[in-house]
Amino acid sequence: MNFKIKFSGRGHNYTEKELNIVREAMQKADPLTQGVYRDKFEEKFCEYIGSKYSFTVSNATNALELTAQLCLFNEGDEIICPSHTFTASLYPFIKKGAKPVWADIDEETRVISLENIKKKVTNKTKAIIAVHLYGYCINDIKEIADYAKEKNILLIEDVAQALGTEINGKKAGTFGDFGIFSFHSHKNMTTLGEGGMLIVKEKKYADIIPLLRHNGHTSFDFERDYYWQPAMGNVDLPELEGNILFPNNYCMGEIECALGIELLERIDNMNNEKRKRAIFFIDSLSENKLLKFHRIESKQHNYHLLVAKVNNNKRDEFINKMAFEKGIQCVVQYYPLNRYDFYKKLNYNDAGCPNADSFYDNMISFPFQLWMSKEELNYMLKSTKEVIEQLS
Amino acid sequence: MNFKIKFSGRGHNYTEKELNIVREAMQKADPLTQGVYRDKFEEKFCEYIGSKYSFTVSNATNALELTAQLCLFNEGDEIICPSHTFTASLYPFIKKGAKPVWADIDEETRVISLENIKKKVTNKTKAIIAVHLYGYCINDIKEIADYAKEKNILLIEDVAQALGTEINGKKAGTFGDFGIFSFHSHKNMTTLGEGGMLIVKEKKYADIIPLLRHNGHTSFDFERDYYWQPAMGNVDLPELEGNILFPNNYCMGEIECALGIELLERIDNMNNEKRKRAIFFIDSLSENKLLKFHRIESKQHNYHLLVAKVNNNKRDEFINKMAFEKGIQCVVQYYPLNRYDFYKKLNYNDAGCPNADSFYDNMISFPFQLWMSKEELNYMLKSTKEVIEQLS
Repeated sequence: MNFKIKFSGRGHNYTEKELNIVREAMQKADPLTQGVYRDKFEEKFCEYIGSKYSFTVSNATNALELTAQLCLFNEGDEIICPSHTFTASLYPFIKKGAKPVWADIDEETRVISLENIKKKVTNKTKAIIAVHLYGYCINDIKEIADYAKEKNILLIEDVAQALGTEINGKKAGTFGDFGIFSFHSHKNMTTLGEGGMLIVKEKKYADIIPLLRHNGHTSFDFERDYYWQPAMGNVDLPELEGNILFPNNYCMGEIECALGIELLERIDNMNNEKRKRAIFFIDSLSENKLLKFHRIESKQHNYHLLVAKVNNNKRDEFINKMAFEKGIQCVVQYYPLNRYDFYKKLNYNDAGCPNADSFYDNMISFPFQLWMSKEELNYMLKSTKEVIEQLS
Repeated sequence: MNFKIKFSGRGHNYTEKELNIVREAMQKADPLTQGVYRDKFEEKFCEYIGSKYSFTVSNATNALELTAQLCLFNEGDEIICPSHTFTASLYPFIKKGAKPVWADIDEETRVISLENIKKKVTNKTKAIIAVHLYGYCINDIKEIADYAKEKNILLIEDVAQALGTEINGKKAGTFGDFGIFSFHSHKNMTTLGEGGMLIVKEKKYADIIPLLRHNGHTSFDFERDYYWQPAMGNVDLPELEGNILFPNNYCMGEIECALGIELLERIDNMNNEKRKRAIFFIDSLSENKLLKFHRIESKQHNYHLLVAKVNNNKRDEFINKMAFEKGIQCVVQYYPLNRYDFYKKLNYNDAGCPNADSFYDNMISFPFQLWMSKEELNYMLKSTKEVIEQLS
């Protein structure tokens, strides 16, 4: 059907400057991949986020695939993960042999908490995936990091939706051992639809990520008399703590990197604008009893998505009215992973995460792309008020 | 050092029309990945190549990774591969459990041949990788395909360098079970530096590639009352002949696809132009005894690269003079895989491919990017003649 306001798969538009940067890079870049724009984007990302090492990758899933390799899972090793997340937060770890152990989300914040993680830690726990879902930086992420360190558990932060969020000036992604960022089409900042970044703290990872990312390409470890002898470059098999790791090809192109450099200049503005709109929307509905939002008026939330819990089992009715009476395409996110066929077939169907199930079964996600006009936002607010009125 | 003519990592420039198509797609595409441009690019590629199913992927290595999954290797299964190729032609198959068996190249054509393949076939041979190296469509690719079919061996064509080449009107990539194409920065046609295409003949593969490519995303196999119930979409675990295959994220963005659609309009022209230049260069040196080219004046060769064997052990001297006296950066390609540390560490160091070794140790690859000017080409020809003179 044709919606007046659709739930767009595109997060934002490009400025004239950004269009020109792409044009210029298309004319000048040589090579068109793995060149100076990549280096500059990674350098600038390190500065922006406050990380020691940053690596561009073709998408965030592949940042997670690399992370999963670097975790060095042994048989029986467990990884703690919320069931309420996007499938790519988890499946790369299953591919590398980890056994998922579900942690429930907190009812209020809709993300995992130290309390819920602690309940699931065993002597087999090798890693934790902390997902800063909806653009909200997990409240106790520092405490989770301290706890993980004490227990010798690897902490992976999935910051795909929460780029630029922070707690006490420290940015999401910099608390754990690995930070994963997405520049996918739908995200707050997108590098032509695909793209991602992996940040790490430790040199042992940083040393081999370039090889793992790009076919094992590396330089020879000896002085050469000629640039072509014995070959233009070496191809090697990365090793981590005595374990062989096979390479991949997860390279991001130069044009995307050139664009990414520029987008970093305005990601804070884009986040601020989305937060401003979200707070306006939420506060305009502060008297309502039907929709329950998660209101955070600080850099801890970038409101990548605007979601609410619908009370009184009215969720489906609510979406239905919004869609078919108002022409507004609300959606539901994120199906608890254990309920997908993928996880059922692997016998991970029993998550025991009542908060995740209950939130999912009662939640709505409003269209909230940055390129939505003020008029559209106001129409959505007005329509939401009317539907609330009808259902109350 | 600063070369007058460098061996560029960028194959061609973009036309004003292509720059505008990218601009327009950046303004219009929604979503910016996995949308209508992808569908159109794939459809047009099917038409151009003459394939039943075409799938865009983030790069050719990932097309090979997908292919390696689809081959369903069991322990002990062998894959026949030339040692003289790019590492990504092979390593994805090793990752999936195949044991490489090296086939030598033909001295004249510098690619594998049916004769050399036959020598290496055993009852463990599960697949053959036929690499159309340098842009040359293997002369007996049809015979190789017929032989593979008869022996129930999967044939994978690595067409990364040979897009658009053909024999008797049938295009490289359409002979085997899988055809892999690259739109990497250096290639005859590049989608912003990264990108690739996988073509297959069989429906059983085509049915699951979309899931394998994109996180296992699929639709529910039942009618739904509401678009959000039980979820917006399903995530499933692809199966092939009873074997579980894990998904990946190998998606190509919409902007690259929009550009790819347009590039297909002029790939034949670009190939023709490169062939014309190569034939001019080769014929201008027809009297020389030092350099031995592979001359094919038909659509069977697109001259992605312009390579020659240097006789009389003069290779290093030749490159040296070209580089330091003429300022022209010739390179050497492709280091026989068994000589890289990667393959040595896996105990695949003994290839027994004397032709590959001999060719590699005596070959040069000239700078040959399409954007090289006529003056540069003439300067390179003049310089080559002078160096030949000096070394004769």
